[in-house]
Amino acid sequence: MSLILKAVENIPLIKKGDDIAEMIYQNTPEIADKDIIVIASTVVSKSLGLTFREEEIVPSAEAERIAALNGKNPRFVQAVLDESLEVFTETPFMLVRNKNGHVCINAGIDASNVGNGLLLKLPEMPDKHAAAIGKSIERKTGKKISVIITDTNGRAFKDGQTNVAVGLYNIKAIRPWIGEKDLYGKILEISEEAVADEIAGAANLIMGEGGGGVPAVIVRGLDLYTDETVSIADMYRNEEKDVIVRSLLKLKNEK
Amino acid sequence: MSLILKAVENIPLIKKGDDIAEMIYQNTPEIADKDIIVIASTVVSKSLGLTFREEEIVPSAEAERIAALNGKNPRFVQAVLDESLEVFTETPFMLVRNKNGHVCINAGIDASNVGNGLLLKLPEMPDKHAAAIGKSIERKTGKKISVIITDTNGRAFKDGQTNVAVGLYNIKAIRPWIGEKDLYGKILEISEEAVADEIAGAANLIMGEGGGGVPAVIVRGLDLYTDETVSIADMYRNEEKDVIVRSLLKLKNEK
Repeated sequence: MSLILKAVENIPLIKKGDDIAEMIYQNTPEIADKDIIVIASTVVSKSLGLTFREEEIVPSAEAERIAALNGKNPRFVQAVLDESLEVFTETPFMLVRNKNGHVCINAGIDASNVGNGLLLKLPEMPDKHAAAIGKSIERKTGKKISVIITDTNGRAFKDGQTNVAVGLYNIKAIRPWIGEKDLYGKILEISEEAVADEIAGAANLIMGEGGGGVPAVIVRGLDLYTDETVSIADMYRNEEKDVIVRSLLKLKNEK
Repeated sequence: MSLILKAVENIPLIKKGDDIAEMIYQNTPEIADKDIIVIASTVVSKSLGLTFREEEIVPSAEAERIAALNGKNPRFVQAVLDESLEVFTETPFMLVRNKNGHVCINAGIDASNVGNGLLLKLPEMPDKHAAAIGKSIERKTGKKISVIITDTNGRAFKDGQTNVAVGLYNIKAIRPWIGEKDLYGKILEISEEAVADEIAGAANLIMGEGGGGVPAVIVRGLDLYTDETVSIADMYRNEEKDVIVRSLLKLKNEK
Protein backbone atom coordinates (compact mmCIF):
# COMPACT_ATOMS: atom_id res chain seq x y z
CA MET A 1 0.00 0.00 0.00
CA SER A 2 1.29 3.46 -0.79
CA LEU A 3 0.30 7.06 -0.43
CA ILE A 4 1.32 9.92 -2.70
CA LEU A 5 1.18 13.62 -1.90
CA LYS A 6 1.68 16.16 -4.67
CA ALA A 7 2.06 19.90 -4.25
CA VAL A 8 -0.22 22.03 -6.42
CA GLU A 9 2.41 24.35 -7.86
CA ASN A 10 2.11 27.76 -9.54
CA ILE A 11 -0.92 29.04 -7.64
CA PRO A 12 -0.51 32.83 -7.59
CA LEU A 13 -0.89 34.98 -4.46
CA ILE A 14 -4.59 34.91 -3.60
CA LYS A 15 -6.76 38.05 -3.58
CA LYS A 16 -10.31 38.63 -2.40
CA GLY A 17 -12.77 37.08 -4.83
CA ASP A 18 -10.30 34.62 -6.35
CA ASP A 19 -11.77 31.24 -7.35
CA ILE A 20 -9.58 28.76 -5.45
CA ALA A 21 -11.30 25.71 -6.94
CA GLU A 22 -10.55 26.94 -10.46
CA MET A 23 -6.91 27.72 -9.53
CA ILE A 24 -6.40 24.23 -8.10
CA TYR A 25 -8.12 22.66 -11.10
CA GLN A 26 -5.98 24.63 -13.56
CA ASN A 27 -2.73 23.66 -11.80
CA THR A 28 -3.37 19.96 -11.20
CA PRO A 29 -2.53 17.65 -14.11
CA GLU A 30 -5.00 14.99 -13.00
CA ILE A 31 -7.60 14.63 -10.27
CA ALA A 32 -8.88 11.12 -9.51
CA ASP A 33 -11.80 9.67 -7.55
CA LYS A 34 -11.08 9.62 -3.79
CA ASP A 35 -8.33 12.22 -4.04
CA ILE A 36 -8.15 14.38 -0.95
CA ILE A 37 -7.36 18.02 -1.66
CA VAL A 38 -5.71 19.73 1.29
CA ILE A 39 -5.94 23.52 1.25
CA ALA A 40 -4.30 26.01 3.63
CA SER A 41 -6.91 28.14 5.41
CA THR A 42 -4.85 31.24 4.63
CA VAL A 43 -5.81 31.11 0.95
CA VAL A 44 -9.46 30.41 1.78
CA SER A 45 -9.48 33.39 4.15
CA LYS A 46 -7.78 35.63 1.59
CA SER A 47 -10.24 34.69 -1.13
CA LEU A 48 -13.04 35.60 1.30
CA GLY A 49 -11.39 38.93 2.09
CA LEU A 50 -10.92 38.16 5.78
CA THR A 51 -7.99 40.55 6.17
CA PHE A 52 -8.13 43.52 8.53
CA ARG A 53 -5.94 46.13 10.19
CA GLU A 54 -5.38 46.34 13.92
CA GLU A 55 -6.13 50.07 13.75
CA GLU A 56 -9.70 49.29 12.64
CA ILE A 57 -10.47 47.50 15.91
CA VAL A 58 -11.84 49.38 18.94
CA PRO A 59 -10.76 47.65 22.15
CA SER A 60 -13.23 47.03 24.98
CA ALA A 61 -12.36 47.37 28.66
CA GLU A 62 -11.98 43.57 28.74
CA ALA A 63 -9.45 43.71 25.90
CA GLU A 64 -7.52 46.46 27.73
CA ARG A 65 -7.50 44.31 30.88
CA ILE A 66 -6.13 41.23 29.06
CA ALA A 67 -3.63 43.30 27.06
CA ALA A 68 -2.23 44.66 30.33
CA LEU A 69 -1.61 41.04 31.38
CA ASN A 70 -0.05 39.64 28.21
CA GLY A 71 1.60 42.72 26.72
CA LYS A 72 -0.23 42.55 23.38
CA ASN A 73 -1.90 45.48 21.62
CA PRO A 74 -5.44 45.86 23.10
CA ARG A 75 -6.79 46.12 19.54
CA PHE A 76 -5.28 42.74 18.69
CA VAL A 77 -6.70 41.26 21.90
CA GLN A 78 -10.13 42.61 20.94
CA ALA A 79 -9.83 40.99 17.51
CA VAL A 80 -9.06 37.66 19.22
CA LEU A 81 -12.02 38.10 21.60
CA ASP A 82 -14.29 38.89 18.63
CA GLU A 83 -13.37 35.52 17.07
CA SER A 84 -13.64 33.49 20.30
CA LEU A 85 -16.39 31.60 22.09
CA GLU A 86 -14.32 31.06 25.23
CA VAL A 87 -10.90 32.08 26.54
CA PHE A 88 -8.88 29.35 28.33
CA THR A 89 -5.70 31.34 29.04
CA GLU A 90 -5.15 35.11 28.94
CA THR A 91 -1.40 35.15 29.53
CA PRO A 92 1.36 34.53 28.45
CA PHE A 93 -0.73 33.88 25.33
CA MET A 94 -4.43 33.68 24.54
CA LEU A 95 -5.55 30.08 24.11
CA VAL A 96 -9.20 30.20 23.03
CA ARG A 97 -12.01 28.20 21.52
CA ASN A 98 -12.77 30.05 18.31
CA LYS A 99 -16.26 30.55 16.85
CA ASN A 100 -16.00 27.21 15.03
CA GLY A 101 -15.14 25.28 18.22
CA HIS A 102 -11.46 24.96 17.31
CA VAL A 103 -9.04 25.47 20.23
CA CYS A 104 -6.02 27.53 19.17
CA ILE A 105 -3.74 30.44 20.03
CA ASN A 106 -5.08 33.94 19.18
CA ALA A 107 -8.19 32.42 17.55
CA GLY A 108 -5.99 31.65 14.55
CA ILE A 109 -5.43 35.33 13.71
CA ASP A 110 -2.07 35.59 11.96
CA ALA A 111 0.13 38.02 10.06
CA SER A 112 2.35 35.47 8.29
CA ASN A 113 1.98 35.20 4.51
CA VAL A 114 -0.64 37.99 4.45
CA GLY A 115 1.35 41.07 3.44
CA ASN A 116 0.82 44.85 3.73
CA GLY A 117 0.80 44.80 7.54
CA LEU A 118 -2.59 43.09 7.45
CA LEU A 119 -3.92 40.43 9.78
CA LEU A 120 -5.97 37.45 8.63
CA LYS A 121 -8.86 35.63 10.33
CA LEU A 122 -9.86 32.00 9.95
CA PRO A 123 -12.99 31.47 7.85
CA GLU A 124 -16.27 31.01 9.68
CA MET A 125 -18.22 27.85 8.83
CA PRO A 126 -15.11 26.16 7.41
CA ASP A 127 -16.99 22.99 6.40
CA LYS A 128 -19.22 25.13 4.19
CA HIS A 129 -16.21 26.61 2.42
CA ALA A 130 -14.57 23.18 2.08
CA ALA A 131 -17.80 21.91 0.50
CA ALA A 132 -18.08 24.87 -1.87
CA ILE A 133 -14.53 24.36 -3.15
CA GLY A 134 -14.94 20.57 -3.27
CA LYS A 135 -18.24 20.69 -5.16
CA SER A 136 -16.80 23.14 -7.64
CA ILE A 137 -13.81 20.85 -8.30
CA GLU A 138 -16.18 17.86 -8.58
CA ARG A 139 -18.24 19.71 -11.21
CA LYS A 140 -15.12 20.63 -13.19
CA THR A 141 -13.59 17.13 -13.06
CA GLY A 142 -16.55 14.74 -12.72
CA LYS A 143 -14.58 13.03 -9.90
CA LYS A 144 -15.66 12.32 -6.32
CA ILE A 145 -13.16 14.06 -4.06
CA SER A 146 -12.68 15.14 -0.46
CA VAL A 147 -11.38 18.47 0.85
CA ILE A 148 -9.55 19.33 4.08
CA ILE A 149 -8.95 22.98 5.01
CA THR A 150 -5.99 23.29 7.40
CA ASP A 151 -4.33 25.64 9.84
CA THR A 152 -0.98 25.53 11.65
CA ASN A 153 -1.35 24.89 15.38
CA GLY A 154 0.78 24.46 18.46
CA ARG A 155 0.08 21.60 20.82
CA ALA A 156 0.22 20.62 24.47
CA PHE A 157 3.48 19.40 26.07
CA LYS A 158 5.65 19.72 22.96
CA ASP A 159 7.33 22.53 21.08
CA GLY A 160 6.64 23.06 17.41
CA GLN A 161 3.50 23.31 15.35
CA THR A 162 1.71 20.89 13.06
CA ASN A 163 -0.88 21.45 10.40
CA VAL A 164 -4.35 20.35 11.51
CA ALA A 165 -7.76 20.07 9.88
CA VAL A 166 -10.18 22.95 10.50
CA GLY A 167 -12.77 22.26 7.77
CA LEU A 168 -13.93 19.10 5.96
CA TYR A 169 -15.83 17.95 2.88
CA ASN A 170 -16.52 14.29 2.03
CA ILE A 171 -14.12 12.94 4.66
CA LYS A 172 -14.66 12.23 8.35
CA ALA A 173 -12.29 13.64 10.96
CA ILE A 174 -11.98 10.27 12.69
CA ARG A 175 -11.50 6.70 11.40
CA PRO A 176 -12.82 4.34 14.09
CA TRP A 177 -10.92 1.12 14.75
CA ILE A 178 -13.04 0.21 17.76
CA GLY A 179 -14.47 -3.28 17.44
CA GLU A 180 -11.97 -4.38 14.81
CA LYS A 181 -9.54 -7.15 15.63
CA ASP A 182 -5.86 -6.58 16.27
CA LEU A 183 -2.96 -8.65 14.92
CA TYR A 184 -3.73 -11.37 17.48
CA GLY A 185 -7.50 -11.38 17.03
CA LYS A 186 -8.16 -9.29 20.14
CA ILE A 187 -10.94 -6.70 19.77
CA LEU A 188 -9.57 -3.14 19.83
CA GLU A 189 -11.27 -1.24 22.63
CA ILE A 190 -10.25 2.36 22.22
CA SER A 191 -8.87 3.48 18.96
CA GLU A 192 -10.13 6.37 16.91
CA GLU A 193 -7.60 7.56 14.41
CA ALA A 194 -7.67 11.30 13.80
CA VAL A 195 -7.09 10.84 10.08
CA ALA A 196 -8.01 14.37 9.00
CA ASP A 197 -5.32 15.82 11.26
CA GLU A 198 -2.79 13.21 10.14
CA ILE A 199 -3.50 14.10 6.49
CA ALA A 200 -3.26 17.82 7.26
CA GLY A 201 0.12 17.26 8.93
CA ALA A 202 1.35 15.11 6.05
CA ALA A 203 0.42 17.82 3.53
CA ASN A 204 2.29 20.42 5.57
CA LEU A 205 5.53 18.52 4.96
CA ILE A 206 5.43 19.73 1.38
CA MET A 207 3.38 22.93 1.87
CA GLY A 208 6.06 24.71 3.91
CA GLU A 209 5.58 27.89 5.91
CA GLY A 210 7.84 30.24 4.03
CA GLY A 211 8.01 32.05 0.71
CA GLY A 212 8.42 28.84 -1.27
CA GLY A 213 5.23 27.47 0.19
CA VAL A 214 2.36 25.96 -1.77
CA PRO A 215 -1.22 26.38 -0.56
CA ALA A 216 -2.70 23.09 -1.78
CA VAL A 217 -1.67 19.43 -1.87
CA ILE A 218 -3.32 16.43 -3.54
CA VAL A 219 -3.30 13.26 -1.39
CA ARG A 220 -3.86 10.00 -3.28
CA GLY A 221 -4.05 6.40 -2.10
CA LEU A 222 -6.39 6.52 0.90
CA ASP A 223 -9.90 5.07 1.01
CA LEU A 224 -11.56 7.71 3.18
CA TYR A 225 -14.11 9.22 0.79
CA THR A 226 -17.64 9.51 2.12
CA ASP A 227 -20.69 11.18 0.62
CA GLU A 228 -22.20 11.69 4.07
CA THR A 229 -22.41 15.20 5.47
CA VAL A 230 -19.39 15.67 7.73
CA SER A 231 -18.49 18.18 10.41
CA ILE A 232 -15.10 19.13 11.76
CA ALA A 233 -16.85 19.85 15.06
CA ASP A 234 -17.46 16.10 15.54
CA MET A 235 -13.81 15.89 16.56
CA TYR A 236 -13.91 18.64 19.19
CA ARG A 237 -13.94 17.04 22.63
CA ASN A 238 -16.93 17.62 24.85
CA GLU A 239 -15.74 20.21 27.33
CA GLU A 240 -17.08 18.32 30.34
CA LYS A 241 -14.90 15.36 29.38
CA ASP A 242 -11.80 17.46 28.90
CA VAL A 243 -9.63 17.48 32.01
CA ILE A 244 -7.21 19.99 30.45
CA VAL A 245 -9.98 22.49 29.68
CA ARG A 246 -11.35 22.08 33.20
CA SER A 247 -7.97 22.66 34.81
CA LEU A 248 -7.20 25.70 32.61
CA LEU A 249 -10.57 27.29 33.39
CA LYS A 250 -10.18 26.61 37.09
CA LEU A 251 -6.75 28.24 37.12
CA LYS A 252 -8.06 31.24 35.17
CA ASN A 253 -11.11 31.73 37.38
CA GLU A 254 -9.03 31.64 40.56
CA LYS A 255 -6.95 34.59 39.45
CA MET B 1 7.24 18.50 -5.21
CA SER B 2 5.86 15.19 -4.07
CA LEU B 3 6.09 12.79 -1.19
CA ILE B 4 5.63 9.02 -1.34
CA LEU B 5 4.90 6.70 1.57
CA LYS B 6 5.17 2.95 1.09
CA ALA B 7 4.13 0.29 3.56
CA VAL B 8 6.72 -2.37 4.33
CA GLU B 9 4.56 -5.45 3.77
CA ASN B 10 5.00 -9.06 4.89
CA ILE B 11 6.81 -8.42 8.16
CA PRO B 12 5.87 -11.35 10.41
CA LEU B 13 4.68 -10.99 14.01
CA ILE B 14 7.71 -9.86 16.01
CA LYS B 15 9.19 -11.92 18.85
CA LYS B 16 11.87 -11.10 21.39
CA GLY B 17 15.28 -11.07 19.75
CA ASP B 18 14.00 -10.49 16.20
CA ASP B 19 16.21 -8.31 14.00
CA ILE B 20 13.84 -5.55 12.88
CA ALA B 21 16.45 -3.88 10.66
CA GLU B 22 16.95 -7.14 8.75
CA MET B 23 13.19 -7.69 8.43
CA ILE B 24 12.68 -4.19 7.02
CA TYR B 25 15.65 -4.61 4.69
CA GLN B 26 14.39 -7.97 3.42
CA ASN B 27 10.89 -6.61 2.71
CA THR B 28 11.76 -3.29 1.07
CA PRO B 29 12.49 -3.47 -2.68
CA GLU B 30 14.66 -0.36 -2.62
CA ILE B 31 16.01 1.99 0.03
CA ALA B 32 17.39 5.34 -1.16
CA ASP B 33 19.48 8.09 0.40
CA LYS B 34 17.38 10.40 2.61
CA ASP B 35 14.59 7.83 2.98
CA ILE B 36 12.88 8.07 6.35
CA ILE B 37 11.92 4.72 7.85
CA VAL B 38 9.00 5.00 10.25
CA ILE B 39 8.68 2.10 12.68
CA ALA B 40 5.88 1.44 15.20
CA SER B 41 7.23 1.31 18.76
CA THR B 42 5.22 -1.86 19.37
CA VAL B 43 7.57 -3.91 17.19
CA VAL B 44 10.65 -2.32 18.73
CA SER B 45 9.31 -3.12 22.21
CA LYS B 46 8.45 -6.69 21.22
CA SER B 47 11.90 -7.30 19.76
CA LEU B 48 13.34 -6.06 23.07
CA GLY B 49 11.04 -8.38 25.02
CA LEU B 50 9.26 -5.56 26.86
CA THR B 51 6.09 -7.56 27.47
CA PHE B 52 4.87 -8.35 30.97
CA ARG B 53 1.85 -9.65 32.86
CA GLU B 54 -0.16 -7.53 35.27
CA GLU B 55 0.05 -10.39 37.79
CA GLU B 56 3.84 -9.97 37.97
CA ILE B 57 3.50 -6.43 39.35
CA VAL B 58 3.28 -5.78 43.11
CA PRO B 59 1.28 -2.62 43.75
CA SER B 60 2.48 0.01 46.23
CA ALA B 61 0.20 1.92 48.60
CA GLU B 62 0.38 4.82 46.11
CA ALA B 63 -0.81 2.56 43.30
CA GLU B 64 -3.67 1.31 45.50
CA ARG B 65 -4.64 4.93 46.26
CA ILE B 66 -4.70 5.95 42.58
CA ALA B 67 -6.49 2.74 41.54
CA ALA B 68 -9.24 3.54 44.04
CA LEU B 69 -9.70 6.88 42.25
CA ASN B 70 -9.63 5.73 38.63
CA GLY B 71 -11.03 2.21 38.91
CA LYS B 72 -8.01 0.51 37.28
CA ASN B 73 -6.22 -2.57 38.56
CA PRO B 74 -3.65 -1.43 41.19
CA ARG B 75 -1.07 -3.66 39.48
CA PHE B 76 -1.62 -1.83 36.20
CA VAL B 77 -1.38 1.52 38.01
CA GLN B 78 1.92 0.39 39.54
CA ALA B 79 3.24 -0.54 36.10
CA VAL B 80 2.35 2.96 34.88
CA LEU B 81 4.04 4.54 37.91
CA ASP B 82 7.14 2.43 37.30
CA GLU B 83 7.42 3.90 33.79
CA SER B 84 6.69 7.51 34.81
CA LEU B 85 8.77 10.48 35.91
CA GLU B 86 5.71 12.55 36.85
CA VAL B 87 1.95 12.08 37.04
CA PHE B 88 -0.18 14.99 35.75
CA THR B 89 -3.63 13.45 36.22
CA GLU B 90 -4.66 10.42 38.29
CA THR B 91 -8.29 10.20 37.23
CA PRO B 92 -10.28 9.60 35.02
CA PHE B 93 -7.05 8.46 33.34
CA MET B 94 -3.36 8.67 34.14
CA LEU B 95 -1.64 11.32 32.06
CA VAL B 96 2.07 11.09 32.82
CA ARG B 97 5.51 12.09 31.67
CA ASN B 98 7.20 8.78 30.96
CA LYS B 99 10.85 7.99 31.65
CA ASN B 100 11.81 9.38 28.24
CA GLY B 101 10.08 12.72 28.85
CA HIS B 102 7.15 11.87 26.59
CA VAL B 103 3.72 12.93 27.91
CA CYS B 104 1.11 10.25 27.31
CA ILE B 105 -1.72 8.22 28.81
CA ASN B 106 -0.69 5.21 30.96
CA ALA B 107 3.00 5.81 30.13
CA GLY B 108 2.28 4.20 26.76
CA ILE B 109 1.57 0.76 28.26
CA ASP B 110 -0.82 -1.02 25.93
CA ALA B 111 -2.42 -4.41 25.30
CA SER B 112 -3.35 -3.89 21.63
CA ASN B 113 -1.47 -6.00 19.07
CA VAL B 114 0.50 -7.77 21.81
CA GLY B 115 -1.35 -11.07 22.26
CA ASN B 116 -1.54 -13.69 25.04
CA GLY B 117 -3.01 -11.27 27.59
CA LEU B 118 0.34 -9.52 27.78
CA LEU B 119 1.01 -5.82 28.22
CA LEU B 120 3.74 -3.95 26.38
CA LYS B 121 5.96 -1.07 27.53
CA LEU B 122 7.57 1.63 25.41
CA PRO B 123 11.31 1.19 24.89
CA GLU B 124 13.62 3.18 27.13
CA MET B 125 16.21 5.35 25.35
CA PRO B 126 14.20 5.29 22.10
CA ASP B 127 16.75 7.37 20.17
CA LYS B 128 19.35 4.69 20.91
CA HIS B 129 17.08 2.00 19.45
CA ALA B 130 16.23 4.18 16.43
CA ALA B 131 19.97 4.64 15.85
CA ALA B 132 20.73 0.93 16.21
CA ILE B 133 18.09 0.00 13.63
CA GLY B 134 19.05 2.89 11.35
CA LYS B 135 22.77 2.12 11.45
CA SER B 136 22.08 -1.53 10.73
CA ILE B 137 19.97 -0.63 7.67
CA GLU B 138 22.67 1.82 6.55
CA ARG B 139 25.29 -0.93 6.75
CA LYS B 140 23.10 -3.33 4.75
CA THR B 141 22.18 -0.78 2.05
CA GLY B 142 25.06 1.69 1.96
CA LYS B 143 22.43 4.48 2.00
CA LYS B 144 22.10 7.42 4.39
CA ILE B 145 18.70 7.13 6.03
CA SER B 146 16.69 8.47 8.95
CA VAL B 147 14.50 6.53 11.39
CA ILE B 148 11.45 7.61 13.39
CA ILE B 149 10.00 5.32 16.06
CA THR B 150 6.34 6.14 16.71
CA ASP B 151 3.52 5.63 19.16
CA THR B 152 -0.20 6.34 18.99
CA ASN B 153 -1.26 9.22 21.25
CA GLY B 154 -4.35 11.15 22.20
CA ARG B 155 -4.21 14.91 22.29
CA ALA B 156 -5.63 17.92 24.09
CA PHE B 157 -9.03 19.39 23.12
CA LYS B 158 -9.83 16.88 20.38
CA ASP B 159 -11.02 13.30 20.20
CA GLY B 160 -9.03 10.70 18.34
CA GLN B 161 -5.40 9.68 18.35
CA THR B 162 -2.53 10.37 15.99
CA ASN B 163 0.80 8.67 15.56
CA VAL B 164 3.66 10.73 16.98
CA ALA B 165 7.45 10.41 17.06
CA VAL B 166 8.97 8.96 20.23
CA GLY B 167 12.49 8.17 18.98
CA LEU B 168 14.72 9.64 16.25
CA TYR B 169 17.83 8.87 14.20
CA ASN B 170 19.33 11.23 11.60
CA ILE B 171 16.30 13.57 11.59
CA LYS B 172 15.44 16.49 13.85
CA ALA B 173 12.06 16.69 15.56
CA ILE B 174 11.58 20.31 14.49
CA ARG B 175 12.18 22.16 11.21
CA PRO B 176 12.66 25.85 12.07
CA TRP B 177 11.17 28.46 9.75
CA ILE B 178 12.05 31.34 12.08
CA GLY B 179 14.00 34.02 10.26
CA GLU B 180 12.93 32.85 6.81
CA LYS B 181 10.81 35.15 4.67
CA ASP B 182 7.13 34.57 4.01
CA LEU B 183 5.36 34.88 0.64
CA TYR B 184 5.46 38.67 0.97
CA GLY B 185 9.06 38.94 2.16
CA LYS B 186 8.11 39.40 5.83
CA ILE B 187 10.38 37.59 8.30
CA LEU B 188 8.57 34.70 10.02
CA GLU B 189 8.73 35.24 13.77
CA ILE B 190 7.42 32.07 15.32
CA SER B 191 7.30 28.97 13.28
CA GLU B 192 8.83 25.65 14.18
CA GLU B 193 7.33 22.81 12.23
CA ALA B 194 7.09 19.57 14.19
CA VAL B 195 8.11 17.52 11.16
CA ALA B 196 8.84 14.27 13.01
CA ASP B 197 5.30 14.18 14.37
CA GLU B 198 3.83 15.11 10.98
CA ILE B 199 5.79 12.26 9.36
CA ALA B 200 4.71 9.84 12.11
CA GLY B 201 1.06 10.80 11.56
CA ALA B 202 1.41 10.49 7.79
CA ALA B 203 2.84 6.98 8.15
CA ASN B 204 -0.04 5.98 10.41
CA LEU B 205 -2.46 6.58 7.54
CA ILE B 206 -1.13 3.42 5.91
CA MET B 207 0.06 1.58 9.05
CA GLY B 208 -3.42 1.10 10.46
CA GLU B 209 -4.25 -0.01 14.01
CA GLY B 210 -5.89 -3.35 13.33
CA GLY B 211 -4.97 -6.82 12.14
CA GLY B 212 -4.12 -5.64 8.63
CA GLY B 213 -1.62 -3.20 10.02
CA VAL B 214 1.97 -2.85 8.93
CA PRO B 215 4.70 -1.88 11.41
CA ALA B 216 6.99 0.08 9.10
CA VAL B 217 6.62 2.68 6.35
CA ILE B 218 9.22 4.18 3.99
CA VAL B 219 8.82 7.95 3.45
CA ARG B 220 10.56 9.35 0.37
CA GLY B 221 10.79 12.88 -1.02
CA LEU B 222 11.73 15.00 2.00
CA ASP B 223 15.06 16.69 2.54
CA LEU B 224 15.33 16.27 6.31
CA TYR B 225 18.37 13.99 6.64
CA THR B 226 21.01 15.12 9.13
CA ASP B 227 24.11 13.35 10.36
CA GLU B 228 24.06 15.34 13.61
CA THR B 229 23.18 13.56 16.82
CA VAL B 230 19.48 14.17 17.45
CA SER B 231 17.23 13.78 20.46
CA ILE B 232 13.48 13.40 20.64
CA ALA B 233 13.67 15.17 24.01
CA ASP B 234 14.60 18.42 22.23
CA MET B 235 10.90 18.69 21.34
CA TYR B 236 9.56 18.24 24.87
CA ARG B 237 8.48 21.61 26.20
CA ASN B 238 10.22 23.00 29.24
CA GLU B 239 7.77 22.40 32.06
CA GLU B 240 8.09 25.93 33.43
CA LYS B 241 6.94 27.28 30.07
CA ASP B 242 3.99 24.91 29.85
CA VAL B 243 0.80 26.52 31.08
CA ILE B 244 -1.14 23.26 30.66
CA VAL B 245 1.29 21.28 32.80
CA ARG B 246 1.21 23.99 35.46
CA SER B 247 -2.59 24.03 35.57
CA LEU B 248 -2.86 20.22 35.68
CA LEU B 249 -0.34 19.99 38.54
CA LYS B 250 -2.07 22.78 40.44
CA LEU B 251 -5.42 21.04 40.14
CA LYS B 252 -3.89 17.72 41.21
CA ASN B 253 -2.06 19.16 44.19
CA GLU B 254 -5.18 20.91 45.48
CA LYS B 255 -7.04 17.62 45.77
